[in-house]
Amino acid sequence: MLLVPDAVELILSETEALPAQRLTFQAALHHTLAAPVAAREPVPGFRASIKDGYAVLSSDGPGEYEVAFEAFAGAAPRALQPGTVAYIGTGGPLPEGADAVVQIEDTAFLGADAGGAKRVRIIKQVSPGYDVRQVGSDMAQGETVLTAGQHVGAAEVGILATVGATEVEVHRKPKVAVLSTGDEVCEPGAPTLQLGQIRDANRAMLLAAAAATGAGVADLGIARDSAATVEAALDRAIAEGADVLLTTGGVSMGDKDFIKPLLERRGTVYFGKVKMKPGKPLTFAKVPVPEQNRSLLVFGLPGNPVSSLVTFHLAVVPCLRKMEGWEEPRLRRLHVRTAMPIKMDPERPEYHRAVATWARPEGAAPGAVCGELVAASTGGQISSRLLSLRSANVLLEIPQASGMLPAGTLVSALLIGDLSAMPVPEVPAITTLPS
Amino acid sequence: MLLVPDAVELILSETEALPAQRLTFQAALHHTLAAPVAAREPVPGFRASIKDGYAVLSSDGPGEYEVAFEAFAGAAPRALQPGTVAYIGTGGPLPEGADAVVQIEDTAFLGADAGGAKRVRIIKQVSPGYDVRQVGSDMAQGETVLTAGQHVGAAEVGILATVGATEVEVHRKPKVAVLSTGDEVCEPGAPTLQLGQIRDANRAMLLAAAAATGAGVADLGIARDSAATVEAALDRAIAEGADVLLTTGGVSMGDKDFIKPLLERRGTVYFGKVKMKPGKPLTFAKVPVPEQNRSLLVFGLPGNPVSSLVTFHLAVVPCLRKMEGWEEPRLRRLHVRTAMPIKMDPERPEYHRAVATWARPEGAAPGAVCGELVAASTGGQISSRLLSLRSANVLLEIPQASGMLPAGTLVSALLIGDLSAMPVPEVPAITTLPS
Ligand SMILES: [Mg+2]
Ligand SMILES: [Mg+2]
Repeated sequence: MLLVPDAVELILSETEALPAQRLTFQAALHHTLAAPVAAREPVPGFRASIKDGYAVLSSDGPGEYEVAFEAFAGAAPRALQPGTVAYIGTGGPLPEGADAVVQIEDTAFLGADAGGAKRVRIIKQVSPGYDVRQVGSDMAQGETVLTAGQHVGAAEVGILATVGATEVEVHRKPKVAVLSTGDEVCEPGAPTLQLGQIRDANRAMLLAAAAATGAGVADLGIARDSAATVEAALDRAIAEGADVLLTTGGVSMGDKDFIKPLLERRGTVYFGKVKMKPGKPLTFAKVPVPEQNRSLLVFGLPGNPVSSLVTFHLAVVPCLRKMEGWEEPRLRRLHVRTAMPIKMDPERPEYHRAVATWARPEGAAPGAVCGELVAASTGGQISSRLLSLRSANVLLEIPQASGMLPAGTLVSALLIGDLSAMPVPEVPAITTLPS
Repeated sequence: MLLVPDAVELILSETEALPAQRLTFQAALHHTLAAPVAAREPVPGFRASIKDGYAVLSSDGPGEYEVAFEAFAGAAPRALQPGTVAYIGTGGPLPEGADAVVQIEDTAFLGADAGGAKRVRIIKQVSPGYDVRQVGSDMAQGETVLTAGQHVGAAEVGILATVGATEVEVHRKPKVAVLSTGDEVCEPGAPTLQLGQIRDANRAMLLAAAAATGAGVADLGIARDSAATVEAALDRAIAEGADVLLTTGGVSMGDKDFIKPLLERRGTVYFGKVKMKPGKPLTFAKVPVPEQNRSLLVFGLPGNPVSSLVTFHLAVVPCLRKMEGWEEPRLRRLHVRTAMPIKMDPERPEYHRAVATWARPEGAAPGAVCGELVAASTGGQISSRLLSLRSANVLLEIPQASGMLPAGTLVSALLIGDLSAMPVPEVPAITTLPS
């Protein structure tokens, strides 16, 4: 049976980045660039002062000078005559004739003379170019400031604005359709449940998980256990322009399974099981949409909510990332120390839900400035217990083995959540230098 | 002069969580709960099979049995008579009279007898309750499944659906208005720049940064350097219902500063400078809005794009997090090893932009399964060079000191980006057990 890493490689080999589209630089936030961006003009475009102070001709040297004028930001300054200086603000354009800036702290204002002319004492000798940003020193004209494959965050939006790149090529984001299946599945808001019925957690959860990756979503509702209903949902996903269809349920061995036979008939099923805990039943298929010259990727996820979200992270997230243009779409792996003993499974590798946080290692010397990622299990890992995913930000890769993994073991872990919200132990800032 | 940690504490002490609002559980994604959520019914609400197999009366023991019926999901099953078994699927309701499940792998189907009745051999002796999820074993009725302060991600949306909590109390998210100031500042799309003019990077960048935290945003445009224009923008921020106003520019010592005097006249200025690099000029103020019985928090950020985004992360992000209900709004700190030497500043602690990634420590034994966060500087840290923020996910806390910090030094770092997209070195999975 396939292992997760093999399944991921197979999925990625069948996934292509979506075509580029042109967006404004503001709308490009959270997209991935499909083409590099170059600076069309040098930044700064003029010699700019780094400090508040006086623009000088450096060869004039220290001494008392007349303040000929003030070079305020946004106005083109007059030329500076030798033997005079000009007041200049941070970012202001250096007047012609000046070649350096003396910061205000290295000057003494002397007041105005009888004729009203302001005078200042320049205390420091500066060399040419001192405290001046030269033309193109931040970005040279023509320099590639962002490469294809770059994720556009706030800083990158700022870089685009700086170079006047108000439209950019980014990969289109995928659209993900989500379908729940099963006669037992009810809307979450059902007033009461009959014997055997459950509220549909999977659909809203997977729609949220897909939306959290930045994908567009389409809610296909709940399909009853009939071949016709499920096929109608598949056709609806295609009609809505979905790139990916997620179904849950209908994949257990003993289930009334209408999904896999349908996918085999309409397309290619690459696998139907993955050797993993939770979530062994996991189908991946591609359904051609010939009239649109494209394909729909279909993931048949298990019906258990835990299994469906864990397989979403492991199998679907890399696929969505590749579609939206990530050059490295795989989940990031890091190493964490387990905070408690973890029971292993002798039959399958387990993806154990845990909350990782930065902490001082147990037994660290007082004042020692070391730290490491420590992972607390979220408790009982039975695949029906959705509370095991509450606040989880990593999946621990627990080897297939008998017995217990002791607390304090270093294990590898896949990042499924943002560490920006990890629980905060008392981690000291490092304020002293190494000796 | 204030240090950053003191400034943050002062800001947080003047910031309150915004009031709760009621949202659907789907719309609650990425919000913070303002009230706990309890399970209104037990989960599961019935005795549910953990496996595909046969529902049995465990005291019947191994032997050949008639398959009396099939207990499919979604239909209330008949009662089971002793001496018979019923086929059951994963998640299906255990028939009355049965007390355990024998998985299909521990049975042998014998086919139908002459009368058409299906028969199966039960091979394994099971105890009462075997492979059965008892009522309330995942969530007890009345159990608090999510606490106030919980961030709602996809898993939590699933938990809310599971317990039928289709409406929840969450904190309102803040609205952030952003204003650029300066006669030299042009729209990013300006066809050409005159001497001394710059394209406005700050506004789009801060709007994106605020939106990335989940805040609502309002674009106040560019205010020219006049007291009246800046005051009009402040009034517009209030009229638009902003909770926070960010201005950039107008805070340098030698700048035409219309922001601070205005804030002093209209409200309380808590500080105007913070001892940090980049971004020393940083104003924090509160302007009362008496007719609405609330206040507007104002951050006067520096005009340099790097300084404005760094101070946004350090000072504004914790404020926005507290407003939206985070119990621990401070940036997360961790420890990273520097990948290259870093020049220190003898006058100010520096927040050095870097890209952290998980990597094997230099000199690690081949096959050793250790790893650590390694941070590569983004290069020249001059505060005009916005490329120093490209892809940055941490701010290194570089102590105020002379000289160079050698490569390989452990420094503390504040997380400003999602590590889910960190560069991926070859980090091995740990597949072997500790010996
Ligand atoms: Mg089903
Ligand atoms: Mg200005």
